[in-house]
Parts: sequence; C-alpha cells; structure tokens
Amino acid sequence: MSKSKSLTLYAANFADELAKAGVTEAVISPGSRSTPMAMLMAEHPDINIHLMIDERSAGFFALGLSKMLNKPVALLCTSGTAAANYYPAVVEAFYSRVPLLILTADRPHELRDVGAPQAIDQIHFFGRYAKWFADMAIPEQTEGMLAYSRMMAARAAGKALSSPAGPVHLNLPFREPLIPDFDLEDIWKNGSGRTQHVNIKPGQAVLQDLEIERIAELLSGREKGLIVCGEIRDPLFTDAVLKLSTALKYPILADPLSNLRTGSHDKSAVIDGYDAFMKDDELLNELKPDVIIRFGAMPVSKPLFLFLKRSPEILQLVVDGQGGYREPTLMASEMIECDESWFCESLSGRVSPAENEQWLKTWQETNSAARKILSSPEDGPDALFEGKVFSELQKAMPEKSHMFVGNSMPIRDADNYFLNSNKRISVHANRGANGIDGIVSTALGMSAAAEDPLFLVIGDLSFYHDMNGLLAAKMHKLDMTVILLNNDGGGIFSFLPQSKEEKHFETLFGTPTGLHFQHAASLYDAAYTQPETWEAFRDDVENAARRKGLNIIEVRTNRHSRVMIHRNLMNRVSQEIREMMRK
Amino acid sequence: MSKSKSLTLYAANFADELAKAGVTEAVISPGSRSTPMAMLMAEHPDINIHLMIDERSAGFFALGLSKMLNKPVALLCTSGTAAANYYPAVVEAFYSRVPLLILTADRPHELRDVGAPQAIDQIHFFGRYAKWFADMAIPEQTEGMLAYSRMMAARAAGKALSSPAGPVHLNLPFREPLIPDFDLEDIWKNGSGRTQHVNIKPGQAVLQDLEIERIAELLSGREKGLIVCGEIRDPLFTDAVLKLSTALKYPILADPLSNLRTGSHDKSAVIDGYDAFMKDDELLNELKPDVIIRFGAMPVSKPLFLFLKRSPEILQLVVDGQGGYREPTLMASEMIECDESWFCESLSGRVSPAENEQWLKTWQETNSAARKILSSPEDGPDALFEGKVFSELQKAMPEKSHMFVGNSMPIRDADNYFLNSNKRISVHANRGANGIDGIVSTALGMSAAAEDPLFLVIGDLSFYHDMNGLLAAKMHKLDMTVILLNNDGGGIFSFLPQSKEEKHFETLFGTPTGLHFQHAASLYDAAYTQPETWEAFRDDVENAARRKGLNIIEVRTNRHSRVMIHRNLMNRVSQEIREMMRK
Repeated sequence: MSKSKSLTLYAANFADELAKAGVTEAVISPGSRSTPMAMLMAEHPDINIHLMIDERSAGFFALGLSKMLNKPVALLCTSGTAAANYYPAVVEAFYSRVPLLILTADRPHELRDVGAPQAIDQIHFFGRYAKWFADMAIPEQTEGMLAYSRMMAARAAGKALSSPAGPVHLNLPFREPLIPDFDLEDIWKNGSGRTQHVNIKPGQAVLQDLEIERIAELLSGREKGLIVCGEIRDPLFTDAVLKLSTALKYPILADPLSNLRTGSHDKSAVIDGYDAFMKDDELLNELKPDVIIRFGAMPVSKPLFLFLKRSPEILQLVVDGQGGYREPTLMASEMIECDESWFCESLSGRVSPAENEQWLKTWQETNSAARKILSSPEDGPDALFEGKVFSELQKAMPEKSHMFVGNSMPIRDADNYFLNSNKRISVHANRGANGIDGIVSTALGMSAAAEDPLFLVIGDLSFYHDMNGLLAAKMHKLDMTVILLNNDGGGIFSFLPQSKEEKHFETLFGTPTGLHFQHAASLYDAAYTQPETWEAFRDDVENAARRKGLNIIEVRTNRHSRVMIHRNLMNRVSQEIREMMRK
Repeated sequence: MSKSKSLTLYAANFADELAKAGVTEAVISPGSRSTPMAMLMAEHPDINIHLMIDERSAGFFALGLSKMLNKPVALLCTSGTAAANYYPAVVEAFYSRVPLLILTADRPHELRDVGAPQAIDQIHFFGRYAKWFADMAIPEQTEGMLAYSRMMAARAAGKALSSPAGPVHLNLPFREPLIPDFDLEDIWKNGSGRTQHVNIKPGQAVLQDLEIERIAELLSGREKGLIVCGEIRDPLFTDAVLKLSTALKYPILADPLSNLRTGSHDKSAVIDGYDAFMKDDELLNELKPDVIIRFGAMPVSKPLFLFLKRSPEILQLVVDGQGGYREPTLMASEMIECDESWFCESLSGRVSPAENEQWLKTWQETNSAARKILSSPEDGPDALFEGKVFSELQKAMPEKSHMFVGNSMPIRDADNYFLNSNKRISVHANRGANGIDGIVSTALGMSAAAEDPLFLVIGDLSFYHDMNGLLAAKMHKLDMTVILLNNDGGGIFSFLPQSKEEKHFETLFGTPTGLHFQHAASLYDAAYTQPETWEAFRDDVENAARRKGLNIIEVRTNRHSRVMIHRNLMNRVSQEIREMMRK
C-alpha cells in the first residue's frame, strides 16, 4: 500500500466526515505541510474554501462565517507560526462562544523539537482556549484508522458546538509526500458503508418543573421588575422574551446586540435609551427595580453595570443557557443554567401579571423623553459627530441588512444613538474579549455568508489594525460597506482620566497616525467617498447598498470636541426627563 | 496611604529596576489598563519608548530591537486580545533565543472570569513559549512589596537572558485609579538605599579540560573534516572559528546567517557556494568528510541537510552554547553544550594540524568553480531574476550596512547568490520558526537600533503579511530600505511537487493577490521606485542608502520562469565543476 494512498484516504475520510457534520466552510491559508488537507477540502463537493493569506485575518474571517451561519467553520494552516496568528481570533471565539475547528498541519514526530525548519511545538498550542485538543495519528489506511479519522472529524465538530460553544484544535502530522492521489476511486467513500460515520448531538440545558415553579414564586408580587438583555444569538429568543415581558409587565432594557431594538416586533416595552439616564442617581430613585432577570452577555452600558454593582438589594437572576459566569457586578443572587428561550416560554405560562401598568409606564415615559434628545443629535463646531452616524445610518440602511459595530467607541455610540426601528437590521459585534483587532475580517466573514448587505462601523485604529483583512474582499469579490470613523487616534481615551495627563497623552493614548485611508482603498480596489454633510453621507450609504464590492465611506470626526458634544447631550437627556416628570 | 501612591511607587520601582537591569527599550501599545506602567516607562529618563498600535507588529519590532542590541526588550500591552497578537513573535523569540520581556496589564482578581469587558485569562497565556511566567501582586507600597516589585523586574530581565535566551511573561493586575502621581518626590528611589536592587548574571556553558582533550583526540588524524556554521549571534565567534579552521585545515561551510561570508577577515577557507553542488552525488564522493563540527542553527541549505541525513558514517559534532537539540538530521554523534567561541579557542590550542593541504584545496577549487557561475546570474526572458537581486544588491550596498532577509525564497536565494565579500554587511533573518510573518517589523526594530543603513529583502506575500509594521516607520521616522521582490504570489511552491497539481495550484499555492504596492508606499509615506534594469536598481539602492526615511524598491519578477533559470544555473555549476575536475 502506497504512502500516497494512505494519505489520500485518511485525509479524504476526514474531510468528508467534516462535511457530513455540517462543516461546509473552510478558511485556508497557503502552506506546504497542510497540502493534503487543503487539496482534499478544495476537491470536496460540499466544502467551500476561502483562501486567506494572513492567518490572523483568516481566524477572524472564520469567526465571522461561523457567527453568520451558526455552525462550526474549519480553519486550516501549515506548521509553524501560522497558527500563532490565529490566537486573537481563538480567544475571541472562546469568550463569544463561537464554534471554530482549528486544523494545524504539523511535521511528523521525528521532526519535532530537533530544530527542523518551520517546526514548532503545536501540542496544546492554544492552551485553555481550545475547548478540546488532540494530536492526531500519522495517516494510515486500515479500516480502523479510517474510522478513527472520521470519528475525530465528527467529534471535533460536535465538540465545537457543545455547550459552551467555542474553538477546538486538531493537530495533523503529515509525512512527505504531501500530494493526494486524485486518480484513486471513491476517495470520499466511508469504508464502513455508512453515509455519516457518527452523528454527534449536543444537549440543551433546561430546568425541572419544580425549579421553574420556584422561580415563578420568587417573582410573584414583585411588580417592579426589569428584564435586561445583552448579546444573544438565538433567533427564537426575541419572541420568547417579549412574551415573558408581556406576562410580567416588565420593561426590557435592550443592548444593541440583543437585536431587540430592530425588527417588526412590538417594541413598546423595549427600552433603548437607558444608558443616557441610568447615571443620574436622582432619576434612578423612581426607576429602581426589586428584581432583574438578565439574559445574554453583560450589556455595553457602563451606567447600567455600575447601577447593578451598587445594588445588592435587588434580586438579580442571571440566565445563561451555556452555564457561564458572565456576572462582573458580583451581585447576582441566582445563576441559572437554562436555555434562554425555553426559560422565557416556560416561565411565561406560570407567572401572574402585575396588577397595574404604572411601573412599565414610568419606564416608557422616561425612555421617550431620552429618545427625543438622542434620536437627533447635533454636530460639533468643527466636524461631524460620531453619535449621529448611527441615527443617520439607520435612516439610510436598506430595510433588511446587517450592521457590524467595532469595539471601543463605536459600540458605545451605537448603544446611545442606534435606537429602536422597525427595519430588520441585525446588529453584530465581537464582544467576547472586546478587542479592536480582527474587526474588518470578522465583518467580511459575516458578509461572505450573509444574504443582505452588511455595513461595518469602525474607528480608524481598529480599521488600521486589521486592514490586511480587506484583501479577502478584493480576492474573493465580497460585498461590504465600511463606515470608517476617522478621528485620527484613540478617541476613547478622551473620555477617561488619562486625558488630563497632558505630558504623555498624545504619545501613549491619542496616538494619531496621520494615515490617509484613500490609499488603502486604492490598494484593495474599494470605492471610496468622504462625505462632508449628512445628506451626502446618506446618499453614499444608499449607493453603497446597491453597489457590489467593497465600499469605504470615511467620516472625519474630532475626538477632542466630541467629548463635549456627547456630555452635553447626556445633560440634555437628564433635563428633558426632569421636565417630563415635573408635568 | 493613597491607592495612587501605592500604584506609583510600585510601578516606578519596577520600571527603574528594569532600566538598571539594562532594559532601556520598551515597545508599548495603547490601552487603558496598562496606563500606570506605560506612563512610568515614558517618564523614566533611561527608558526609550516605541509606540506601536498593532501588537503583532509590536512583538516583532521588539524582537528586532533585541536582536540588534543583544539585550532584553520590554513589550507592554493592555488586557484582552492585545497580548494574543504577540504570540507569533513570542514563538519566534523562543526558537531564535531572543530575550523578550512581555508585560501584560490585567484586571484585578475580582474582575477575572466573570465576563468583565476586555478581561481574559492571561495566566500562562503563552504556554510553554514563555520561559518563565508570573502573575504579579496587586500594587502595594510597603518596603517588602517594593523590594518584590524590583526583584521581579530584575529577575524577568535576567531570566530572559539566561540560557537559552527567550521570552518571559509577567502579568500585572492593576486596580483603578490607573493614573500615577507624578507630584510625588523621588519616585525612582529604591527604598533599600541600593542603586540596583539585584544584579542577576547568567552563566556560560564550558567544558572541562579532560573533555576538550577527548574531543581533540577524536579529531586527531582525521584530515577530512568540515566546519559547518549556521546562524550565530556572537561577535567573538568569527575570529574564533577562523582560528579553529586554520588549526585543523578544515574548510568552513558558511550559511549566510553565520556572518562569515562578509567582512574584512580572511575568507580563503570560507565556502559559500556549497548549496549549489552538494546535491550532486557524483561530486560529493570527492568531497565527503570523515568528521563535521557544526555550530549555530541548522543552515538553510537543503542539499547540505539531506547529505548529513544520509551520512550516518560521518562523525558529527554539534556544539551549542545554549544546550539545544537543533539536529534535524538525527545523525549527530556528539551533542556538546559549550559556548561556541570558547570551544573554538580551547580546541584550537590542542589539535595538531592536518599533514597536507589537499583536502582544503579540493573544496576551495570546487567552490571557486561554483562561484564563477553563481556570482553573475542572468535574467530570464520576461523579468528580472530574483537571485541576481542579491549579487547586485551586494555591489550597491554601502561598505558598512545590514541586510535583513525574508523567509521562504529570499533566504534561499541569499544562500545561493549572496556570496563572500569584504564589505562589512551584517546579515539577519528570523530563522527560529522561519515564518513569513512579522518580517517587516523585525527589520524595522533592528533598523531603529542600528548605526548603519538596513536593507530588507522580502517577497510580496511576506511584505503584505506585515504591512501594518510600516506604520512605525511613518510615526517614528525610521530609516529602512525595502527591496520588495514581487512575483505576485507564493514563489516557493513552484519549486515543490504541488506545482504539478494544476487544478488547485493557483488557488491554494500560487495565490496571486494582484496588489499594487505603490499604494502602500503612499499610505506610509515611503519613497517608491520600480527599477526595470540592474543599473537602475543599483542607482536606487545607492540613493536609498543616502536618503532618510522609508524607501521601497519594488523588483517585479516571475515566479514561474524563475524556476527554470535557477535550475539551469545549478546545472551549469555542476558542469563547471566537472570540467574543472577533468583538468
């Protein structure tokens, strides 16, 4: 039996079982050692390959694909530092619970740790950030070893999906020759005669009846309740939580990533302006709940976080279907491992609604007053205001579309200024580790699998950090529109105490790069505009939505003046609410 | 005692002890959590800070600084995925034995693993790739804790330098407020009254007299010997190994990274063309040694590697001052942990020289014949030839300068075409893990600390991979000249069996990007030229050497036709040597 035949059948069975397990997308970076798997994935009829030269961008691109498709995506690279470039995406996938299947080619055992070129120790290479790791056997073609190859592929996909979802890592040693033999017949055939070798089904956490009843009991009589929703990626959740909110007459504080702010559903109980008034202690007296039920990741809002942190007297229930401890306030009284939609549905049928509507009405009125100010922010004296980008963008975006929001300031601005709308806009971000890295590629990965146009709103440092990611748009003709908020540096620091340290501020925190991004647009064949009015901006967004390919709409803003504009708006929100209350 | 005072004194004592331990360069990326250490490093009179926005490039930039200065360099970043971006540079530093001191800011313990923003598990974050890891204590200002802070700084620097040198990682948790108090007096003062808290000295491996005598005995009577030198970064080594070569009458096979090919020393025994004739089995019969003494990393040459691998009968001594096992042939008969220069000096005094000169002469003549062909390669029909870049570059480079060579094809071309010269050109590369990543930044880091002009020779995919690194040149006004070999894709694969697989070749291996790099030059304010003749190329190199700032000289080549040109040259070398032998 030839080496080449062993290699071919072993790797083909692996690739085929991956496809059977639903891994239909593979993000591949070029390399020699990974040749057998790369070629077999390229050859497989049910696997789409996405070639990416920079493995760091590749990692985030796979993350984006997986987030959009809600299934495990394979990442393949050669031996050496290639895999180290995946690390940022692996960490993000771990914390944001995105199933990734990392396949690293490796030198065989006799070439490890002996100074061979491009051979590094890849065993447990991602440490605790791989949920599961295995160093696979050298290819063999016995029936047993082909079953092993299939079992490992299925298991890796299953493990990536099992709760909490996340990255898994298989290390694949290959000996030369590395070229598979496509002249062999039936390379995809499973020796056992089965179609799929093993179908692996992850379970779902639910609660026993008694436990749901206990929780219903806990809530009974507590009319002042709030539901808080952070990022959650379950399409069933919106209806389920609205049902619970109706049943309990509790308002829902909806983070932009809860995806409760957008869509055709009833949003009368969906509170979108809370970040702007929850820092006002006086107002909070009126709005203080007895109980909070929290779903999803911790919302972006810092005032909400600080409020929870200093309110140990509130009964705080945190429901997490994947059993994490995402509770930085340290004040939760109940940590409940239960599928969120299941929890809402089950609880809705068991609770008795509040007697009166006053509590809900107070929240609704307060929120309306805040929205009056937040929905039409004004510009500063010297530049367009970053917050207004979100309200204007929402107006111009197509009825059905996606918005990916960068970290640092954009997600905070989205929280304040991207308010409830009936448009079906899905909102996404990388909030596992909140890095400014890999954003361009994650958004491109999502757009590669999206049916509707995708808009990325991103700051200049974050855009620069993953500019390499744009090559995928050029090479694979992907469609995406970047709204580039360019304030030439790190805008978030102007809000922090660091801004008072004049001596080192610009060097360490402001970090202006002076980059002219139209050159980046030329490099990656993007259509570039730089609107100077909101009318031009909306036109550019509408044109971009119709245009294929990569669009960059650069909005020049001012990171110094924007601090005052934002703070003034926040003050006006407080004033407006006070006036409303006086009436 | 205020929190701010504790923070300031604890971090100031740390920074001051670092400076005392010789860590005078810190590469810092912007972030909030790292504020105290960033500001104190910026404030310290003996620490130079280098701000880099992309932490991946920052990691390699620090690697370059450390390689040029031969001392530990600090890397500082904030909490979250920032540190994950260091991973490729950390792996490279580990295998290339470069001392790096990674400082990651972290959230305090109460904000770990509770879903707090930008908080990830940073404990043992680099796995086995950090030689030493410690999670430091929260800042306190007792005398004991300030001594602890200093001891840890000194120890980290010492540990990074100790054998084998490499990366160490300290994790620094900080609580808010994060701003140090510069109004405090004497923040750099060591509470103990000492100038430096503790001076840590790494040892050096040497052999006992008896052992050196045993080795001299082993070599006695073996007239057919070779010295093989790979990358080695000890300035004393050149003289020492030349002395040994003279004492034994053994020729020296000198890898380009041995730095034996360039400089004013006697190069009569330095063989630079061996890669071109060691694949010719017939010639090898004449040239086969009884003994080989090998220093430094395994040379780039694949023919040399294969020759060693299939020659178990040769007595092979591998000398490594840092006690590694860099021996992928698996045929070494002696692995000797001993400082290489010390070994050469000690052994030189103890060996008796060979009786006749014939052995050395045969190697010299063979090499001369090869050099006749290799020193003036010709171009192909449709493009400039990549190999010739190195011979032409050598002619045009200043008398004293640095050349950094990219991985994949450039280092192999340098091996064949960058031959002996009296110019004092130092040759550098990243040969720890041989990645194509991080090359631009490593070269820029070296150039930031170099006294002489630095030329980077790099392929287009590798250049693209770390294009972000160029921002440092723009922001910090660094001088470097990039010779960009653009064959639009992965040239190395055209030499490999993959090139015969037409169906998937261009998609998976050729990977043409179609990038026009003059846009990158515009983005980063580089002077850009694209010479089409060798005369223009030499002019551009000479102009670049005189010009400040970043220069990019793009040489368009053809990855398909170059394979034939190179193979023809290799055949001509064999012919030339056969003719020489017939005479």
